Amino acid sequence: MYNALMRAEILSVGTELLIGSTLNTNARFLTERLAERGVDVYHHVTVGDNMGRLRQALEQALGRAELVICSGGLGPTDDDITMEAAARTLGVARRLHRPTARWIRQRLQRARLPSSRLSLNQCFVPEGAQVFQNQNGTAPGVLLQTQRAGEKRWVLLLPGPPSELEPMFIRQAWPTIERLKAGPPEALAIRTLKIAGLTETQVAEKIGGLLLRRPPLTCGIYAKAGEVQLKIMSKAPVLAAARRAIRPVETFLHQTFGNRIFGVDDDTPASVVIRLLARKNLSVAVAESCTGGLIGHLLTEVPGSSKAFWGGVVAYHNRVKSRVLGVPEDILVRYGAVSAQTALWMAQGVRRLTGASIGIGVTGLAGPTGGTARKPVGLVYFAIVDSRGRVVEERRFTGQRAAVKAKSARAVLDRLRLRLLRS
Amino acid sequence: MYNALMRAEILSVGTELLIGSTLNTNARFLTERLAERGVDVYHHVTVGDNMGRLRQALEQALGRAELVICSGGLGPTDDDITMEAAARTLGVARRLHRPTARWIRQRLQRARLPSSRLSLNQCFVPEGAQVFQNQNGTAPGVLLQTQRAGEKRWVLLLPGPPSELEPMFIRQAWPTIERLKAGPPEALAIRTLKIAGLTETQVAEKIGGLLLRRPPLTCGIYAKAGEVQLKIMSKAPVLAAARRAIRPVETFLHQTFGNRIFGVDDDTPASVVIRLLARKNLSVAVAESCTGGLIGHLLTEVPGSSKAFWGGVVAYHNRVKSRVLGVPEDILVRYGAVSAQTALWMAQGVRRLTGASIGIGVTGLAGPTGGTARKPVGLVYFAIVDSRGRVVEERRFTGQRAAVKAKSARAVLDRLRLRLLRS
Repeated sequence: MYNALMRAEILSVGTELLIGSTLNTNARFLTERLAERGVDVYHHVTVGDNMGRLRQALEQALGRAELVICSGGLGPTDDDITMEAAARTLGVARRLHRPTARWIRQRLQRARLPSSRLSLNQCFVPEGAQVFQNQNGTAPGVLLQTQRAGEKRWVLLLPGPPSELEPMFIRQAWPTIERLKAGPPEALAIRTLKIAGLTETQVAEKIGGLLLRRPPLTCGIYAKAGEVQLKIMSKAPVLAAARRAIRPVETFLHQTFGNRIFGVDDDTPASVVIRLLARKNLSVAVAESCTGGLIGHLLTEVPGSSKAFWGGVVAYHNRVKSRVLGVPEDILVRYGAVSAQTALWMAQGVRRLTGASIGIGVTGLAGPTGGTARKPVGLVYFAIVDSRGRVVEERRFTGQRAAVKAKSARAVLDRLRLRLLRS
Repeated sequence: MYNALMRAEILSVGTELLIGSTLNTNARFLTERLAERGVDVYHHVTVGDNMGRLRQALEQALGRAELVICSGGLGPTDDDITMEAAARTLGVARRLHRPTARWIRQRLQRARLPSSRLSLNQCFVPEGAQVFQNQNGTAPGVLLQTQRAGEKRWVLLLPGPPSELEPMFIRQAWPTIERLKAGPPEALAIRTLKIAGLTETQVAEKIGGLLLRRPPLTCGIYAKAGEVQLKIMSKAPVLAAARRAIRPVETFLHQTFGNRIFGVDDDTPASVVIRLLARKNLSVAVAESCTGGLIGHLLTEVPGSSKAFWGGVVAYHNRVKSRVLGVPEDILVRYGAVSAQTALWMAQGVRRLTGASIGIGVTGLAGPTGGTARKPVGLVYFAIVDSRGRVVEERRFTGQRAAVKAKSARAVLDRLRLRLLRS
């Protein structure tokens, strides 16, 4: 009754994973995406750039999973052996794939890089493979079909860099697998609700029973940096039915958590804010001290953000706070650069300077040094100023420098979201 | 001649790793520490909380590694089965370990938590095991000895939370293993050189033979986002000798790649720039359009960056370019916001505005929309202005919005680095 493609195995290839220099984020990415698509993963295996061990791992994986996904080892150098290992394990020859050669040549030309014999290495793909051209690099991905014990098997080879692997899996590989796989039709609907300002324990305590639900409708809870995600998954013969089953659960969660739920599915704190600003025809400018440009960076990751985000000032040095934003020296001396007063002057300054409808100021101590007993590392002030007035907040964050910056940016974006919801 | 303890395998246990909610940082931690201690790791395997699959993975690991390290599944609840799986695989019984029971009771009392029958579950350890009391939690770790094919084998079980696993491995488990294992001592030295501005292919072509070197000295090549890393690894009986062997290789690579090598080991493009600026007593301010604050964010990730990075302006909207940075309307109209002229005016504007010794301007089309035939998505201009003059560059980057932003920031930081090296 469930997905005909029941089980996948992730095979990560690369000696760098076995000397501890690289964190295996691909395995997590792929498992999470597969889980959302109703595919079970029972094993992750990591091997180095070694033909014998890679082939052995491939053979073992084919013995216990319908879909084997290998990541890494598709590059042009001698230690990139995944393509050859797969071809040999499946008993097929590798041939020069002319469309891939053309694709790589064009990409190198566009980037004004020379073509070389080495880059041609990547164009030899196993016979009969479905080839995915790499939109963000050169190494192609391939999907191969084979048989084991009379059953159909798929082997998917993806390039190792996450910026290449992730879009290739989502946009090219999975849609192809989806089309090819047999079995009764089955649809999986997934809805992710994203919650700000509560811990995983706090969320779990409010919805206890829901987390114990069994298929066809389940709910998982995941703590991510700065947010808690609730993932409702529902299986049914058709997508409309699967989606319909989710609706009452989603309604219950919205009633339970209200505007703590900042977004759904692919929403980010920044994308939600940009959408609200655009809807209300408002613009924002940001004066950043301790976040150093991170808030601007997050807002401009959102396509189309230029309509609502006008820019701002990174006022790291006090001279920039006073010279560019017009924070009076007097304020900086009397209250300090890390103070509610300075945050407010920064917000007002950047609003006046740019003419944006909303001005934001954020100042704090990201550490590791500079903290005192009264103003410890992690202390952050931010202010939001608009035509309706102002709001100033003091927060204390734990963690290293990068964590304090990230938590500050999140807090600012979430406070702005709540203010926009009420306007 | 090498370590008597030649090979280890990491077995990560936990269903949370197989639904993608948890990143496997333990495997990286353990491999990195093992590599430093001269122990090779050929496989990482992850399985869920399933007795059959866990026992199978343990059996397979014992067949190919002298030391098998399991992390996770030692807690008190029903899904914690690692202790039992190990005992059954090794054919030994589990017994109540009274010192552990006492230890756990004391810890719970100190934390003012109630003792429960559940917490007693953790006190049953396999017979003959060496037990490590958990300094940061309750679940004990154990080290077991067994035989396979007439050879000695060790099985080390460690608790899953990194805050418990890491100190237990370093302070308790490894010293014990070190004492127990036979054979001559061995040390591993690692040096990573980081290269900007060349592709993996270009780097490999210049050093072909080096990548084929066999132990005791090897060199690996890894393409990361925006950089290529060369990792030189050397084994010797003592660390000083291992380091000495690396030196001539490093010298050769510096001669080959010159200032394309932007840093070593933990250096980042931003940390290198901050170090150079501080050394020369220079300051920088950045006017960012397409990067939206990313360059400021990267620079301020570096502890102590406030000495050299003064801040800047995120000039996303043209109004900010003209009103705040003083880019003439005429320039914006005649050449466009994405032009060499605008980049130069932005750099000059931010330098004048802040008083920093170096001004940088960057403007481009991050996409996905807004591109034209003459000015396609990915086109980026940046300018660097200082007391010696100016440099303006045009670049064309491929990829999505986030990739164009990241590549632009990297290019700017690398160009600044090269200019600082020559000043």
